[in-house]
Amino acid sequence: MSAYRSIEWRGDSVRLLDQRRLPHETVYLDFTDHASIADAIRSMVIRGAPAIGAAAAYGLALTAARSDATDAAALRAELAHAADVLAASRPTAVNLFWAIKRMQAVIDDPALTTVDQLRVATLAEADAIAADDVWTNKQIGLNAMELVPNNATIIHHCNTGSLATVDYGTALGVIRTAHEQGKNVHAYLDETRPRLQGASLSAWELLQLGVPHTVIVDGASGHIMRTRGVDLCVVGCDRVAANGDTANKIGTYNLALVAHAHGVPFYVAAPTSTIDLATPTGDDIAIEERPAAEVTTIGGVQVTPDGANVANPAFDVTPAQYITAIITEMGIAYPPYTESLAALVAAADARRSSA
Amino acid sequence: MSAYRSIEWRGDSVRLLDQRRLPHETVYLDFTDHASIADAIRSMVIRGAPAIGAAAAYGLALTAARSDATDAAALRAELAHAADVLAASRPTAVNLFWAIKRMQAVIDDPALTTVDQLRVATLAEADAIAADDVWTNKQIGLNAMELVPNNATIIHHCNTGSLATVDYGTALGVIRTAHEQGKNVHAYLDETRPRLQGASLSAWELLQLGVPHTVIVDGASGHIMRTRGVDLCVVGCDRVAANGDTANKIGTYNLALVAHAHGVPFYVAAPTSTIDLATPTGDDIAIEERPAAEVTTIGGVQVTPDGANVANPAFDVTPAQYITAIITEMGIAYPPYTESLAALVAAADARRSSA
Repeated sequence: MSAYRSIEWRGDSVRLLDQRRLPHETVYLDFTDHASIADAIRSMVIRGAPAIGAAAAYGLALTAARSDATDAAALRAELAHAADVLAASRPTAVNLFWAIKRMQAVIDDPALTTVDQLRVATLAEADAIAADDVWTNKQIGLNAMELVPNNATIIHHCNTGSLATVDYGTALGVIRTAHEQGKNVHAYLDETRPRLQGASLSAWELLQLGVPHTVIVDGASGHIMRTRGVDLCVVGCDRVAANGDTANKIGTYNLALVAHAHGVPFYVAAPTSTIDLATPTGDDIAIEERPAAEVTTIGGVQVTPDGANVANPAFDVTPAQYITAIITEMGIAYPPYTESLAALVAAADARRSSA
Repeated sequence: MSAYRSIEWRGDSVRLLDQRRLPHETVYLDFTDHASIADAIRSMVIRGAPAIGAAAAYGLALTAARSDATDAAALRAELAHAADVLAASRPTAVNLFWAIKRMQAVIDDPALTTVDQLRVATLAEADAIAADDVWTNKQIGLNAMELVPNNATIIHHCNTGSLATVDYGTALGVIRTAHEQGKNVHAYLDETRPRLQGASLSAWELLQLGVPHTVIVDGASGHIMRTRGVDLCVVGCDRVAANGDTANKIGTYNLALVAHAHGVPFYVAAPTSTIDLATPTGDDIAIEERPAAEVTTIGGVQVTPDGANVANPAFDVTPAQYITAIITEMGIAYPPYTESLAALVAAADARRSSA
């Protein structure tokens, strides 16, 4: 486990590590209601697809824990409202909706007839989602090892480590696993404009893990591939469509095209909770447009002239044809993805059913 | 002409617009010796391949103007030293060396036998280099018009406008010419990390010219091409090798690969002074590595954790195969570039000889 926790249940509150203050300050914030957790997701106190799924699950457990409702029906009405508020916090990452759906299945269980039963069950499910996430990430790391040679030079985009998850990380977890297994890896970290999660969060995590790394601007990946040689790229994802098209942080698609031109394998590390078989292709994924200020202002300093027009799409879609493989906790999916992803999702569902 | 001048001769000093302070402050700095001009080039008070060529030329004229030398031989020795200092300021842009070489040919002219003759001749040559640059840029814009359709959506990288040149600009000059000819153009401006010349300087120039534009992070160009449609990319260059390989601001190569994957034409706007027939291929171009602080700190705010390792290559090389055409003041070069570029350089030399 890491020395820091992106998210922690505190009995009657939820504690989040404020990722906007990293890497300079380690500040924890306590939340006592679902609305402020939704705000924390929206304002990126907590970010990363798996992490915001777990945060939403704990937001529902928190609603149950602190409710004044005196019967199950009243609490269910409160929880339905809280689920709507949490689901509206961010549109692209499907883990958010996946976690809320898992919680909803528990909330809807007719065997739960009292407020206390609902409190116990929602907390247990949120804990299970969090524990699953850690197990999932470690399995992704282990499954990926056949794809990561010794002495690998790797390019990574955004932050996908412990901070983006409950713990351990997805794509950064792959790099971490290789390092922990004694493979000599060097990670080039795209700084990942506009919010610089690579320069701040991923560099911070790899420094603490002792993994050799180099921060680069996003535009430098092609130059690094052409002049220094790169063995693979690995990125996380916010949603994988049924056909393998993958939504992830803006800049991922450029990196995939650059890797493709160099014949460098491009891997997506994806918990099966990020695979949305109900989304046929990437064209069906809503791409969040975030405030222009993320581009125009860095650390409080305005970099554009007054009046400049700005676009700030937070994610992009990488078509499946540019993805070499998708690494999940249930195994590695290769093209054609429509078949391989469905099989891994079915295996994950079967594992949970039998648990 | 633009309302601002990147560089201006002031009789016994050289005035430069401090581009590090833009877009928020318009500050002019006066320089009285070649060493401080070399520092200004190094620290990017003035930047852009054509602009630093002209700045170096005026730096030599300034050395002559302010010299205490009492005979031509002594002044020539001073000028030789000044040329060395100026040439060492930045390694990648060939215009710097081209301008110094043009000045050197005048300095070496045996017909000039007095200090005063050398003063007059060096200033006249610096003025000619500056005037040539403006003419050249306008011709590039006009020559490019057959490649820019009406209602064109264009992606542009870095800053290549009046600020990067003596006036008018190269790639941004193409966009400006289209706008001035009444073509309805919209420019997406890569913000261009690390120094954000696109977000600050290019946005500032297009705002003043009234050209519709949208600033994007460098990683968003693929998303824009995939979802909104882009008609062409146009960029400047710091050096074009004899085979067409082109060194330009870091991130140019990524943009070229992204354009190639989408079948979007990728054009380089290049004064023939930027074409270096003595450099066989891009592999022969020295790529400047600039201070890590440009990546780690933005507007005085540190974005990386202490101890993070950083690489900051200032330029990259785009292989000729990804360049649709190279637009010069003498015409448009198409592949195979070895032949077409040599012909245009010969035409430029002939024009100057006959002038």
